[in-house]
Amino acid sequence: MADHFFYAADLSSAVVALDVEESTHCIRTLRHRIGDNIVLTDGKGSEAKAVIVTADPKACVVQIVGSVSSPASGVPHLHLAIAPTKNVDRMEWLVEKAVEIGVYAVTFVCCDRSERTRLNMDRLHRIAVAALKQSQTLWLPLVEMTTFDEFMEKYKGQEADKYIAWCDNDNTRQFSEEQFEHEETIVLVGPEGDFSPREVEMARRLGYAEVKLGNRRLRTETAGLYVCMTLAIHPFRAK
Amino acid sequence: MADHFFYAADLSSAVVALDVEESTHCIRTLRHRIGDNIVLTDGKGSEAKAVIVTADPKACVVQIVGSVSSPASGVPHLHLAIAPTKNVDRMEWLVEKAVEIGVYAVTFVCCDRSERTRLNMDRLHRIAVAALKQSQTLWLPLVEMTTFDEFMEKYKGQEADKYIAWCDNDNTRQFSEEQFEHEETIVLVGPEGDFSPREVEMARRLGYAEVKLGNRRLRTETAGLYVCMTLAIHPFRAK
Repeated sequence: MADHFFYAADLSSAVVALDVEESTHCIRTLRHRIGDNIVLTDGKGSEAKAVIVTADPKACVVQIVGSVSSPASGVPHLHLAIAPTKNVDRMEWLVEKAVEIGVYAVTFVCCDRSERTRLNMDRLHRIAVAALKQSQTLWLPLVEMTTFDEFMEKYKGQEADKYIAWCDNDNTRQFSEEQFEHEETIVLVGPEGDFSPREVEMARRLGYAEVKLGNRRLRTETAGLYVCMTLAIHPFRAK
Repeated sequence: MADHFFYAADLSSAVVALDVEESTHCIRTLRHRIGDNIVLTDGKGSEAKAVIVTADPKACVVQIVGSVSSPASGVPHLHLAIAPTKNVDRMEWLVEKAVEIGVYAVTFVCCDRSERTRLNMDRLHRIAVAALKQSQTLWLPLVEMTTFDEFMEKYKGQEADKYIAWCDNDNTRQFSEEQFEHEETIVLVGPEGDFSPREVEMARRLGYAEVKLGNRRLRTETAGLYVCMTLAIHPFRAK
């Protein structure tokens, strides 16, 4: 049985205090005691073995044993920018699956036709951490929320393969057949009612290539996962 | 706005009576009236235009207009055989996503280490039909449940590329790099506690190749969807 996996954002000191949720999970749920071994990840690619020194279910303290290692494999390169769905469960599900499959960041972008403009970001963070621990990956994606226009402005200078996936029937360029020249990939996925013409035009002007995600009509969250899976499976990308 | 999509298993006669659920959806929810146009699919690759002749919310009757067409594109070739998860929501979610992405059949196989041996098949059928309508695909997968041994017996003579995905660390053969010689692909995905040695041995003996699904630890339902997505994205398979 492998040692249990916990999340701690900062592994820079030899003694680490787990936050309340991780402490509860470690001490109350899994009934760990002083002297037990666990594994910590900072969600930024590093991991360390640690031993429990204070078994407090609200403030568990652990001591790092040996060195913090940062394996270079499996670094995710996808930044998924997706309109939030009306149904919040579907976004929570997407975050969980995106963590399992591996993404660098998920930005929820409020679009002209978005029906939802707020998300509980704390809850999404907790879901992401739970998925990180479950899948024992070292990468916790950045999960944030902004508007379409702010997103476009923020990343307009970013070196990346940039795509906008929308439901234009004339468009035959398949995302899964792309070659991906840059290290990072940014993909925009629109709301149930699709991007507005203004948004599509802005994306075009900023160098986003228009692509389709297979030949079926996918729900927003399925489209988001299709993008994640394509890069995970892609022969030039999959590690 | 495209005509609304409805499911009717049999399109062989010119006049079709929708079942109660489809009738309610058509007449009560979407408020269709006599003379409105809709589209029917039988979930077996055929579709037809139809016009409403009796707007009864419990027994809507429609008349097929023109001929029943069966486009050959997008025929799914994957038979996913997957152990049911303890949490039933995750299986329902998988069925919905599998329909959207496209599979020929999903068989829930009770394995030696399965914690769940029953599923509400009626409910799964309804979820599959809802996803079929939402994604406007013509293919409703067969969704069934059986035991591992019965499944292996039933398909032992079937011509197909056969795989068993399990968590053997020595195994480096990636499912996403396969070439797929046969038209049909059968993939076994195991329960949370993985297949038993007896099951792995039986699969080996019956010609199932052992593969891994990427390099991350995926939940059962994520593994199932990874398989569906791989075939949807695969250059030799995607239509």
